[in-house]
Amino acid sequence: MSKSFEILDVSLRDGSHSVRHAFTEEQVRAVAKGLNAAGVRYFEVSHGDGLGGSSLQYGLSATDELKLIETAVSECTTSEVSVLLIPGIGTKENLQAAARLGAKMVRVATHVTEADVAAQHIQLGRELGLKTAGFLMMSHMAPVEKIVEQAKLFESYGAEIVYVTDSAGAMLPQDVTARIQALRQELQCEIGFHAHNNLSMAMANTIAAVESGATYIDGSIRALGAGAGNTQTEVMVAVLEKLGYQADIDLYKILDVANQVIAPMMQQPQEITGGSLLLGHAGVYSSFLLHAQKAAQQFGVDERDILMELGRMKTVGGQEDLIYEVAQHLIKA
Amino acid sequence: MSKSFEILDVSLRDGSHSVRHAFTEEQVRAVAKGLNAAGVRYFEVSHGDGLGGSSLQYGLSATDELKLIETAVSECTTSEVSVLLIPGIGTKENLQAAARLGAKMVRVATHVTEADVAAQHIQLGRELGLKTAGFLMMSHMAPVEKIVEQAKLFESYGAEIVYVTDSAGAMLPQDVTARIQALRQELQCEIGFHAHNNLSMAMANTIAAVESGATYIDGSIRALGAGAGNTQTEVMVAVLEKLGYQADIDLYKILDVANQVIAPMMQQPQEITGGSLLLGHAGVYSSFLLHAQKAAQQFGVDERDILMELGRMKTVGGQEDLIYEVAQHLIKA
Repeated sequence: MSKSFEILDVSLRDGSHSVRHAFTEEQVRAVAKGLNAAGVRYFEVSHGDGLGGSSLQYGLSATDELKLIETAVSECTTSEVSVLLIPGIGTKENLQAAARLGAKMVRVATHVTEADVAAQHIQLGRELGLKTAGFLMMSHMAPVEKIVEQAKLFESYGAEIVYVTDSAGAMLPQDVTARIQALRQELQCEIGFHAHNNLSMAMANTIAAVESGATYIDGSIRALGAGAGNTQTEVMVAVLEKLGYQADIDLYKILDVANQVIAPMMQQPQEITGGSLLLGHAGVYSSFLLHAQKAAQQFGVDERDILMELGRMKTVGGQEDLIYEVAQHLIKA
Repeated sequence: MSKSFEILDVSLRDGSHSVRHAFTEEQVRAVAKGLNAAGVRYFEVSHGDGLGGSSLQYGLSATDELKLIETAVSECTTSEVSVLLIPGIGTKENLQAAARLGAKMVRVATHVTEADVAAQHIQLGRELGLKTAGFLMMSHMAPVEKIVEQAKLFESYGAEIVYVTDSAGAMLPQDVTARIQALRQELQCEIGFHAHNNLSMAMANTIAAVESGATYIDGSIRALGAGAGNTQTEVMVAVLEKLGYQADIDLYKILDVANQVIAPMMQQPQEITGGSLLLGHAGVYSSFLLHAQKAAQQFGVDERDILMELGRMKTVGGQEDLIYEVAQHLIKA
């Protein structure tokens, strides 16, 4: 089978969450060198919450992300560096700076129902000559029609790719297939998919995405990412080859990056812990976990009941106050 | 949907590999108590290589497995204890002893093409009044017709369940579906499935098994098992509930076992390392990894090339000498 998708590695962006935003220049250089040598077409470098994410609220980066982007770019001969931008966290100035340093792609991320806040950033990406994508976070929360509507907004702003993003790792293959197939039918642009492994389904969901027509798929080496981590890049290379797809990535070389570069820098393994399983089961933001644990302690209720209730309420980022209200409500109930 | 399968937890048997056969009585007591409280119907207690496995060749158990079985049984009010028996490693006397101590189920395991060596052990299991299963290891290696033939042998000896066992974690969902569906059509007895996660597909393969008619499925808490570990029991409970199945296991209580009992006893996380990925990709026994590493060092070749070649040759357990021959051959090539 001929090559039908590009793998974008997010170890140096989603992985930022997993190492508490502490990537060093040396680490980024080693990972970038390895990814470039293995033949990975695109990889992303940014704070876990995108350009400008370094802050007290989202976690301070140990090294300025612009420095990390510059370092990564300097190691690329065939790979290209992508950046993530969440409007409201990152600014147009951040994106201009990243482009000046050699970033070749931007993914503009919004909550699945809020694509309209990304219009200017998508347009700027195109003006800067970047490959420009829209990234629909928490895609499990919206029905298929809503996702099509929001993806069409991204496309109308100029996005060349629209991603279905399973931020909470809450989807099952049928959820992925329904969403990707609908976008495939309704849009002209390319479709991407980004998974998390909270329900141990990241790899199976990625296969479902490719089989439904996604042409951009995300992975991270050793699954280094938020929550239970992402689809594991090196496993994806092996499994997609087994299925007859051509990933055009050297399996041994990507394993070398996994064993020799990423494994030694991990602060904890990417296991499916009780917390990350509950986040995927309830379908809530991973940043809610810590708040739910605090609220549980404060009000003497079970953090798992809080998370499940937040999932039922379809709570979204920015509604952290609700976590404490839910805890109070649970005492009374 | 009504309940349509039983989950058998193998943490205290497959997990024996992962903790180097060092389970203590206290640990087994805590796990057994937790599994019983969570409503797990069956769980297995044995050396990783089954009854009688404690040896220099397979690894010495820190505590006599009969003591561990007795301890586990003493904590059961509704759960029942299973034992694994590999003819040639375990004996009929081992099985009689386990039954005397209160084990209620035996799974007699053979290589996928060697069911005929299990006739006497299956018959003894039935005579002892145990629920008796045949367990076809390395099922990825044989075509569907061969598996049906071997499963029919098990059934003819009296097996009440025949398991498709993906020992190397080498299967993809279509492989599982083809095997389980064929057995479902050709056999009267129940069908089981046992997965490993080397290709990150254990959970998806388990769903495929249930959807194809398997009524016994294996899991281990925190995926504690050989290689990349098994289908993660607590994740399975959540995912199967999400799919509309009724697992009849208390999710919070099984999470308590995961967080409070299993996590603290793990010697290393159940990650998909380069080694376990290659084992799944090549489809070879996990015990080959160490030999391949030694041979690679001795002959100055890449261990990954050795494993891939062993997979192409469909090498099976007992053929360890071949590993060194392959390494020598690779130098010449």
